[in-house]
Amino acid sequence: MPQQQSAAVFNDLSLTIPPVDLSDRAATALVIIDVQYSDAAAGRGWVKACEAIEPGSMDYYVDRLERTAIPAMRKLLDAFRNAERPIVHLAIGSAYQDLRDCPSRFRDWTRSLERAAGIADLWWTGNPDYAFRDEVAPLEGETVIRKTTQGAFNGSEIQNVLDRIGVKNLVLAGVVTSCCVETTARDAADRGFGCVMVSDACADCDQGMHDAALKNFGLYFGRVAESADDVIQAIAAGSHV
Amino acid sequence: MPQQQSAAVFNDLSLTIPPVDLSDRAATALVIIDVQYSDAAAGRGWVKACEAIEPGSMDYYVDRLERTAIPAMRKLLDAFRNAERPIVHLAIGSAYQDLRDCPSRFRDWTRSLERAAGIADLWWTGNPDYAFRDEVAPLEGETVIRKTTQGAFNGSEIQNVLDRIGVKNLVLAGVVTSCCVETTARDAADRGFGCVMVSDACADCDQGMHDAALKNFGLYFGRVAESADDVIQAIAAGSHV
Amino acid sequence: MPQQQSAAVFNDLSLTIPPVDLSDRAATALVIIDVQYSDAAAGRGWVKACEAIEPGSMDYYVDRLERTAIPAMRKLLDAFRNAERPIVHLAIGSAYQDLRDCPSRFRDWTRSLERAAGIADLWWTGNPDYAFRDEVAPLEGETVIRKTTQGAFNGSEIQNVLDRIGVKNLVLAGVVTSCCVETTARDAADRGFGCVMVSDACADCDQGMHDAALKNFGLYFGRVAESADDVIQAIAAGSHV
Amino acid sequence: MPQQQSAAVFNDLSLTIPPVDLSDRAATALVIIDVQYSDAAAGRGWVKACEAIEPGSMDYYVDRLERTAIPAMRKLLDAFRNAERPIVHLAIGSAYQDLRDCPSRFRDWTRSLERAAGIADLWWTGNPDYAFRDEVAPLEGETVIRKTTQGAFNGSEIQNVLDRIGVKNLVLAGVVTSCCVETTARDAADRGFGCVMVSDACADCDQGMHDAALKNFGLYFGRVAESADDVIQAIAAGSHV
Repeated sequence: MPQQQSAAVFNDLSLTIPPVDLSDRAATALVIIDVQYSDAAAGRGWVKACEAIEPGSMDYYVDRLERTAIPAMRKLLDAFRNAERPIVHLAIGSAYQDLRDCPSRFRDWTRSLERAAGIADLWWTGNPDYAFRDEVAPLEGETVIRKTTQGAFNGSEIQNVLDRIGVKNLVLAGVVTSCCVETTARDAADRGFGCVMVSDACADCDQGMHDAALKNFGLYFGRVAESADDVIQAIAAGSHV
Repeated sequence: MPQQQSAAVFNDLSLTIPPVDLSDRAATALVIIDVQYSDAAAGRGWVKACEAIEPGSMDYYVDRLERTAIPAMRKLLDAFRNAERPIVHLAIGSAYQDLRDCPSRFRDWTRSLERAAGIADLWWTGNPDYAFRDEVAPLEGETVIRKTTQGAFNGSEIQNVLDRIGVKNLVLAGVVTSCCVETTARDAADRGFGCVMVSDACADCDQGMHDAALKNFGLYFGRVAESADDVIQAIAAGSHV
Repeated sequence: MPQQQSAAVFNDLSLTIPPVDLSDRAATALVIIDVQYSDAAAGRGWVKACEAIEPGSMDYYVDRLERTAIPAMRKLLDAFRNAERPIVHLAIGSAYQDLRDCPSRFRDWTRSLERAAGIADLWWTGNPDYAFRDEVAPLEGETVIRKTTQGAFNGSEIQNVLDRIGVKNLVLAGVVTSCCVETTARDAADRGFGCVMVSDACADCDQGMHDAALKNFGLYFGRVAESADDVIQAIAAGSHV
Repeated sequence: MPQQQSAAVFNDLSLTIPPVDLSDRAATALVIIDVQYSDAAAGRGWVKACEAIEPGSMDYYVDRLERTAIPAMRKLLDAFRNAERPIVHLAIGSAYQDLRDCPSRFRDWTRSLERAAGIADLWWTGNPDYAFRDEVAPLEGETVIRKTTQGAFNGSEIQNVLDRIGVKNLVLAGVVTSCCVETTARDAADRGFGCVMVSDACADCDQGMHDAALKNFGLYFGRVAESADDVIQAIAAGSHV
C-alpha cells in the first residue's frame, strides 16, 4: 500500500533549490509585508474580526507577532538600514472606501468579516488602522508599495518598482506567513527573484499553516532561514542563505 | 498560554469566501494543470528524478494519480465537453533546450534533478515526455497554454487568453496540488477569477501538503470541492460551489 | 515607380475598426491623462524646460491647452459626472525624489531637462506642480492612478483597477497626444478595451504630431472623435463612436 | 499667433534621450518584428487585403520591403549572428482559427479585412502564410515569440523571456514601422529597455507615417538609427547609438 512520502526526500530535494547570494548590497532588498494595525494588532481590524467570529482564535497569532515576529523584523530592519541596503514595505489597502480596486471576491469577503465583527472600512487607506505598526514603520527614503491583493504581484506596482530599483534578491518577512507572505514569495521566486523567507520574522494564526508554508516554499521555490539572526550572520559572513 | 488556532475559526471563516457561480456556461472554464509524462507518470521525468533521490518516495503520488486524480479529471473533462464549456490545458515546458525562458533558479533546480536522476531535457518541449497524458489530452479546439513557471500567471499568456475568451470562473485540477495547482489557483483568485479547486482531481506527493494547500485555499482564496462529482452535480443543479 | 500610399485606403481601412459602443454606462470610463501643472501649464515644469531649450517652442501647446483642450475636457468631465459614469484621472510622477520607480532612461532624460531649464524635481510627487490643473481636478470619489511611465500600462495599476471596476471602454483625453495619451490608448486597445481618442480634448506641442497620432490610432487601434461634443452627442443618442 | 513648434526643439530634445550602450554582447538583442508572409509579402495576407480595398495602395510598402527593409534586416541578422548576440523573432498570429486569444476588436477588424479581400485565416498559425519570410527566418537556437496583439508587451511572453535571457537593450526592425514595431518599441523603452529603432530596416505602407513614428520615438522614447550599417558600425567601434 502506498505510504505517505517521508520527509527524507523533501530534505534532499530542498537541497536542490539553489542558494541565494545576498552579497550584492544594492541588489538584495528586505521586504516587510502587511505589518499594519489593520491586520497585525490585537483588538483591531482583521484580528478583531476573527476574534468576534471565535473568541480566543487569534491568541496564538498575537503572541507570535509580539514576542517573536516583530522583534525579528526589527533586527532585519536594523541590519538592512545599517548596511544601507534597499528596504521595501508592502501595505494592503484600497484607495477607495468602496474597495473598487480590489477583487470582488475580496470585497465580499471583507464585507462579511466587517459585519461579523461590527467594524467598518477594514482595508480602506482612509482608516487610521491602515498605518504600519510603529515598530516597523518606514523611515524617510524607504520604498512603500500599496497592494490591493494578497500576493503583491497580483495587484501592485511591485514588479515595476523592484525592476527599476535593480533588485534581484528578496528577504521576506511579515504577515501572515501562509497567505500574503507566501503568495508574494512564491510569485517573486517564480518570476526570477532569489528569495529567502525568514521563519521567525513571519507570523501566522496557526503553527501548522506556518510550517506547511515554509516546507512547501523550501521544496519548490526558494530558501528558508530559521531566523533573522541566521540571515544577518550570512550577510556578515558573505555567505549564502 | 497561547494555543494553536482551532479548526473552528477556519470553518467559520471559510464560509466568508463567497461561493462561485458556475451557471454561466461560457464564463466557466475547466483548467487541467501539468498532467504530462514529464511530471505525472511513473518512471519518467520528475517522478523518476525524485525516485532516484529517494526510492519509494513517489509511490503515494503515482497511486494517487492513477487511482484517484486522473479518473476524476476525466469525469470533469467529460462533463465540460458535454456541456461545451471552455477547457484550458496548461503544460509546463521550455521552448528551448537551454531553458532560456525559465527563471534561472528553475534552470539550476532542474539541472540538479537531472544529474541526480541521470535524465536529460526534463522540461524541454522537444522531449516526448512534454506530451499530455493520453487520458486527459486536449481535443481539437481546446485551449492549450504553455507556461515556463510553476504558477501560470508568472510565465505564460494565461491572463491574456482567459480575458480574451471571456472566462470569469475557473475549476482547477491537476498536479501537484501544493505547487503548480495551488500557485496558479491563488493568483487566479487574487486577480479576480472565481476559483474552485477540486480535491480528488488533484495529486500531491504528500497527503499532508495536499491537505494544507486546500485548507489554505479555502480559507483565503476560493472554494474547495471534495470531488469532481460534487462539481458536476452543482453545475447540473444550477447551484453554486 | 511606387507612390506614397494615398489617404483613400486609410479612410477605407479606418472603417474596418469596429465602432465603440458607449451605451453601457458603468462600463465606459473617461480617462484624463497627465493634465498637471508639471506638464500642462505655461511657465512651469516640462513647458518651462522646453522653453528654456528653445524660446517660443511651446507657444502652440499652451495655446492649444488653454483655448481648446482644457475646455473640451471640461465638457467631457461634466457629461460623465452628470451621467454618473466612471472617471479615471492619470498623473505622471514618482513617489521618490530620486525617481527610483521610473525607468532609468526617463530619469536621465528628466535630469537633462532639469539642468537645461534650471528646475528641480520635475516629476516628484512632492513637488506642488504634481497637482492636477484646477480646471480638471478630480472630485471626491473619482479614481486617481499614478503612473511612473509614459504609457499607463507600462508602470501603473491601471489594468488591475479598470478590470476591478468593470470598465470595458475608454474615452481618452489629455496631454500630450502623441506621447502619453497615444501610448496609453494604443496599449488599452491592444489589451481589448474599446477606445475613443477625442481630438479636441488632447493637446500636443506640434500639430503634425497630433494629427499623425490620431491618423495612426484610427487606422490600427480604435476610434477617433473630432470633438468632445461629438462624443457627448453620441452618448446622448445611444449611438456608437 | 501661436506657431507650430519648429524642428529645432525636437532636435535639441532628442539629444536628451540617453544613448544606448550596445557594448554588452549578451545584453543586446536584435528583435525582428512580424516579417511573415501574412503581412510582409506581395499578393498575400494583409497586403492582398489592402490591395483589394484600394488597388495600388501597397505598392510603396512592397517596394520598401523588398528593396530596403529586408536587405537591411539581413545585414543586422548577419552581424548579430556573427557576434553570437541574442536574436528574437516576433510573429503575429493566433493559435486558434477562431482567434480566441486576440482582442475582440482585432478579431472583428480581421474578419472585415478577410471579407474585403476574399481570403481566410489571415492570422491563424495554421495558415502557411504564418511562416517567416525565408530571407529573415530564424535559425536553430534563436528565440521565437508569438504574439496575439500589435504591441508585443500586450499579448505575448516577451517580458518574461527577455528578462530570463538577461537582455537589457533592443535593436528593433520589421513591419510596420508605425504599428507593431513602434508600439513594441515604445512599450519596451517605457519598461526600461534601451531601444534603437533602425529606420532602413523597418517598412511602413506610408512614408509619412514611417517618418512620424521615428520622429516621435526619438523625441520621447529611445534612439533612432538611420541604417543597419550605422548600428553595425557603432557596435564594431564600441560606441553608442
